[in-house]
Amino acid sequence: MLTKTQHLFDDATRVTAGDSRWQGRTSDDYWAFVGPFGGATAATILRALMDHPQRSGDPLALTVNFCAPIAEGDFDLDVRLVKANRSSQHWCVELSQGGADVATLATAVFAERRPSWSHQQAEFPGAKPFEQIRPYPKIAAKWANQYDFRFVEGETDFSSKIKDAPASAFSKLWIGDKVPRKIDMLSLMSMSDAFFGRAFHARREMMPFGTVSLTTYFHADAEDLAKEDITRVLGTADARIFHKSYGDQSGELWSPCGRLLATTTQIAYFKA
Amino acid sequence: MLTKTQHLFDDATRVTAGDSRWQGRTSDDYWAFVGPFGGATAATILRALMDHPQRSGDPLALTVNFCAPIAEGDFDLDVRLVKANRSSQHWCVELSQGGADVATLATAVFAERRPSWSHQQAEFPGAKPFEQIRPYPKIAAKWANQYDFRFVEGETDFSSKIKDAPASAFSKLWIGDKVPRKIDMLSLMSMSDAFFGRAFHARREMMPFGTVSLTTYFHADAEDLAKEDITRVLGTADARIFHKSYGDQSGELWSPCGRLLATTTQIAYFKA
Repeated sequence: MLTKTQHLFDDATRVTAGDSRWQGRTSDDYWAFVGPFGGATAATILRALMDHPQRSGDPLALTVNFCAPIAEGDFDLDVRLVKANRSSQHWCVELSQGGADVATLATAVFAERRPSWSHQQAEFPGAKPFEQIRPYPKIAAKWANQYDFRFVEGETDFSSKIKDAPASAFSKLWIGDKVPRKIDMLSLMSMSDAFFGRAFHARREMMPFGTVSLTTYFHADAEDLAKEDITRVLGTADARIFHKSYGDQSGELWSPCGRLLATTTQIAYFKA
Repeated sequence: MLTKTQHLFDDATRVTAGDSRWQGRTSDDYWAFVGPFGGATAATILRALMDHPQRSGDPLALTVNFCAPIAEGDFDLDVRLVKANRSSQHWCVELSQGGADVATLATAVFAERRPSWSHQQAEFPGAKPFEQIRPYPKIAAKWANQYDFRFVEGETDFSSKIKDAPASAFSKLWIGDKVPRKIDMLSLMSMSDAFFGRAFHARREMMPFGTVSLTTYFHADAEDLAKEDITRVLGTADARIFHKSYGDQSGELWSPCGRLLATTTQIAYFKA
C-alpha cells in the first residue's frame, strides 16, 4: 500500500515494488501543462532502480526518452536488468499505462565507483548567495512551484518588448525544493530537468514545448553526495541551437561549495 | 549475402536485414584495443534503424550503452520500434552475440523535422584550414587510422615530461575519413565517438579506458546534411570532471562553413 511520506517529492516519486513490474502514480503536485513534470517521471524511474533488490552501485548515467504523454493516474514500470558486470549494471525501464504502448523508455547505468585519480577541470560558476536573491514567483505550472528557483543570471523575461533578436539561452540559478529536502540522487535527477525550456529564454515567450530525450550523468556517488549535506544546487543551463522544431540544452548542477555533482543534456521539441 | 562495398566505413557498418533481428559483423579495419571501435558499433546500429522498412524521419538522438565487450565476429541486432507518433519514432536496439547477454543497448529517436524558427546560438570555433595542418600520425589503434585527424588545438602530448599538473582536456580538430567519404548521418554518429579519451589528454598518457554511455543529438536532417556536401567536420571536445574512475566528455561537430551538425556527450571509465 502506498503511504503518504513526509516530503511531496518523495510522495510524487514513490513506487511499489514488483518483480519486474513496478507501479507508480502521477502526482498532482508535480503536474506540468499536459502531463507530469519530466523530472519527476525520471526520478520515479530512478527510484524504482535504486530500490530494486538486484541493484548494486550508484547511478552513473540515466537516459529518459519521453515517447508519449502520460495521463493522470497509475503507471507500470517494467524494470529489466539487461546486463550485470563485476562493478556495473545496465538497466532498461519501460513506463506504460493500462497495458497500452510504452510512454517513457529509459536506460540506466549503475556503477560501484572505485577511488581513482580525480580532477575537476570545469570551473565553479559562482553566484550571489541564495538568501540574497528574490525567489522566482509562483507560476501556472504546478511542478515549478515545488521548487525554489533563484535566478542569478538569465531569468526569463516574457514582458520584454524587444523580441526581434534572440535573447541568450544561458541561465544560472539556485535550485532547491520549496520545502527544503536534502539533495540525493533522486532530487538531482529531477533538478536536471527543472530548467525552463531554453527556447522560452531565447524567444522571451512561452510556446508548445516538450523534452524528447534527457541524459544525466552523476559525478558524485551516494557517499560523496551524503557528505555534501545540502538542500540546493547551483545550476547552469545553455543551448547551442534551435533548428527545424528541435533545440538542445546542456546543464550543470553544482554543490554550493563548488563541486560538480551532475551534468545533463537534452533535446526538446518546440513549436515556433 | 554481404557484398563488399566501396568504402571501408560502409563495409564496417553493413547490416543484413531481418524482421526484428538484424545481423552485423565486427570490422578488423575499425578495431580498437579490446573490441570494435564504439563509433562503428553505434553507426552500425544507426544503419539498421535507417534501413528499417518501418523507419520514418531522420535521426534526432541516439544513446548507446556499452554493456560488455563485443568479440570479433558476427552479432545480432534486436531492433524494436517501441512507439511511433505522428512525426516521431522511438526505437530500442539490443546487440548480442551467439544468443548470449546483451553487449550493447541503444535507444534512438527519429523525427520528421518541420520548418521552424531557427537560431544557432553557439559560435563556430573556427580553425586553420585542414590542408595547412599535418595529419595525425598512424597509431596502434587500427580504427584511428581510418580517420584523418588534424589537430588545431589540444593534440595529445604523451612525450611531455610535465606530468604533475593535469593538462587541458580540450581539443579542436578536423575529422575526415582517411579515404574521403561524404558526411552522412552514419559517419557523423561514428565521428561523435572518434575523439580520443579526454583522460588521455588530461593525464598526457594512455590508460585502460572505455566509453560506457554515449549520446549524440543531430541538429541537421538528412536534407540539410546532403546540402552541406562535405567530407570532414571540425570537432571540439572537452571534459568537465574525472572522479572515482569515470569522466565525462562533451563535443560538437561542425561543418567547415560554420553550421553545427551534431552535439555529443559521453561518460567513460578510466583506470588511473
